[in-house]
Amino acid sequence: MDKIFILKASKAKTSKDFSLNDMPGDGGRMDIIARCVNSAFFLSHDLRKDTEFIAVLEGEPNPPVTLRFVGSKLRYLSPDERCTGGLIKKALEKVSEKETESTPGIFVSKKSFSEVISEIDCEIIYLHEDGEDIQTLPIESDKICFVLGDHFGLSEEDEALLKNAKRVSISPMVLHADHCIIIVHNVFDRKNL
Amino acid sequence: MDKIFILKASKAKTSKDFSLNDMPGDGGRMDIIARCVNSAFFLSHDLRKDTEFIAVLEGEPNPPVTLRFVGSKLRYLSPDERCTGGLIKKALEKVSEKETESTPGIFVSKKSFSEVISEIDCEIIYLHEDGEDIQTLPIESDKICFVLGDHFGLSEEDEALLKNAKRVSISPMVLHADHCIIIVHNVFDRKNL
Repeated sequence: MDKIFILKASKAKTSKDFSLNDMPGDGGRMDIIARCVNSAFFLSHDLRKDTEFIAVLEGEPNPPVTLRFVGSKLRYLSPDERCTGGLIKKALEKVSEKETESTPGIFVSKKSFSEVISEIDCEIIYLHEDGEDIQTLPIESDKICFVLGDHFGLSEEDEALLKNAKRVSISPMVLHADHCIIIVHNVFDRKNL
Repeated sequence: MDKIFILKASKAKTSKDFSLNDMPGDGGRMDIIARCVNSAFFLSHDLRKDTEFIAVLEGEPNPPVTLRFVGSKLRYLSPDERCTGGLIKKALEKVSEKETESTPGIFVSKKSFSEVISEIDCEIIYLHEDGEDIQTLPIESDKICFVLGDHFGLSEEDEALLKNAKRVSISPMVLHADHCIIIVHNVFDRKNL
């Protein structure tokens, strides 16, 4: 099954001028995005080609910037955070109104969270601790988009954009976004979807 | 339920002289250990206090070295790989025959994989793609130890040490060790164990 994961990264820096030695601080928690990329794509000795990961960066100095990682096209990606951070820096050098492929499989644009959501052409699920259990969720489509918040969660304004999305829970605990992605993949892997 | 995760890191460097800028290469895949620490302990705004993570480092120049991370005592840990890498460097400065606490909750010793396994005082489960499904596993104890291989897996000699351990599978896919830890936690979180 094709999956799209969308993360709103409310403080992630929107210029290439952040230090790979301080992705949490100087990068505005760019480390969270790097770990989500790892979770979205890495299998042992393989990448998940049926997955996209979209991060909407809303930190200074030039928000919004949207990064789109496409599993079927990705190259030069290693599992470590610093490697992904380097590819994000390259992407942030290429920001323009038109979506641009900065390195194979990584696309950068000026889209906002609202624009990203409005362009999604499949069922949207909002991962939320108060939602329906993912284990019992009926699966009716061959493509699903999962929306995740960062450590600040989504604002009321963001949640209004998701008013038609089903709220789905994956755990009784509140988890980091990258851990949520692993669990979602596992649910569908187990169903061979 | 108390959980112990044990990772055999066959190439991880056993001196502090590795670069935090190249944990995959110079550190001998030290990035894998850092991600396993993240997976073992981090909840949103909290740490899992009922979890231990043990990494047996078998790379050059001074193998073996065992690092033991104790959730109930950990301090100064951030989710990013570089932070954990820094704490590992500090631990590797303090290697001696006797187990030493290098920073709060991180203990370092010269124990081998065989010694670590022989000292475990609870049920041992070997996470393996050919095992019994974890979802249907009967849980009879309040403490379980899960053994994981790195990207090289375990040797025949290591597997001989685990001949009495149950083989348990968590996914039809072959996954990275840090992803396995997330899924194991989720199985027990869902059962409120």
